[in-house]
Amino acid sequence: MSNISMVEAKLPPGFRFHPKDDELVCDYLMGKVVVADPQDSPQLMMIEVDLNKCEPWDIPEIACVGGKEWYFYSQRDRKYATGLRTNRATASGYWKATGKDRPIYRKAALVGMRKTLVFYQGRAPKGRKTDWVMHEFRIEGPLGPPKITSLKVSY
Amino acid sequence: MSNISMVEAKLPPGFRFHPKDDELVCDYLMGKVVVADPQDSPQLMMIEVDLNKCEPWDIPEIACVGGKEWYFYSQRDRKYATGLRTNRATASGYWKATGKDRPIYRKAALVGMRKTLVFYQGRAPKGRKTDWVMHEFRIEGPLGPPKITSLKVSY
Repeated sequence: MSNISMVEAKLPPGFRFHPKDDELVCDYLMGKVVVADPQDSPQLMMIEVDLNKCEPWDIPEIACVGGKEWYFYSQRDRKYATGLRTNRATASGYWKATGKDRPIYRKAALVGMRKTLVFYQGRAPKGRKTDWVMHEFRIEGPLGPPKITSLKVSY
Repeated sequence: MSNISMVEAKLPPGFRFHPKDDELVCDYLMGKVVVADPQDSPQLMMIEVDLNKCEPWDIPEIACVGGKEWYFYSQRDRKYATGLRTNRATASGYWKATGKDRPIYRKAALVGMRKTLVFYQGRAPKGRKTDWVMHEFRIEGPLGPPKITSLKVSY
C-alpha cells in the first residue's frame, strides 16, 4: 500500500489525492529533484516506477490508489546515450505522445510542462492503441532537461 | 471556513475533497436525511445553503473550498404548495435544468440521480446564460421525493 492510500484510508469519505498540475510540479517534482534525501516531506508519498519494466496494467497494483488514476515518479531513460529522446517502450508495447505539450503555471509563472501519451501494444508503427493514458509532468526552467518526471496514469 | 476546508488545510499538498457521485448520495445525503442529529459524522462537513437567497457568486465565500468547485446541502423549496416543482429562482436570476438526469449507482444498485443546471441572469424565458453550473444530487428510492439535496457548484 502506498503512502497516498494510507493517508486516504484515514480520511472522511470523498477526500482523496487529486492534485492540480502545478502541485505535481512544484510540491512533488521540484522537491524530489532538488532535495537529495527528503525526510518527512510530501515527496515520500509517491513511489518511483520504472516504466520500461512495467506494463500499464501492472501499475494499479504497484501505485495503488483508489479509482482509476495512479500517480508516481519515473526516471527518464534516454533512448540513445547522446540524445535527448526518451525511451518509452515496455516488453509488450510503447507509450506514444499525443497532442501538444501543455504549459503549467503557478501564479502566472511557467513552472512545468504536461505531455499526454497513449499506450500502444506491439511495436511501432504497427502498435494497437489502448485506453491507457499517461500525463507526464516535467519541470521547465533553469534546472535544465529533467532526469525525473512525475506521472499520472489513467484508464 | 467550512469543515471541509479545515480538513484540507491539514493535509499534504494535492489531497482535497473530491467526492464521487455515489459518495455524495450514500455517505453525505443519506446520512443527512435519515439521521436526525448526526454527531461527529461526515454530514457535518458540508454546510447548508438556501439557494433562493443566494446568488451563485456568493457561494464561493459561504461554502469555501479551494479551487472552483463548492459542495453544500440545500433544502428544496416547492414552487407551489401543492406541486412537486422546485423553485430555483434567486433575486437576480434562476437555475435551469439542462440535459437528462443521470442515474448514480453503488455496487450496481441505483442509489440516486444527478441533475445538471445552468444559471441564467434575468427572468425566464429571457435570461442570459452564465458559466455557473450546478449538479444536484438526490436520493432515489423508497425514501420518496427528497426534501434535501446535495449540490456541487462549479465555475
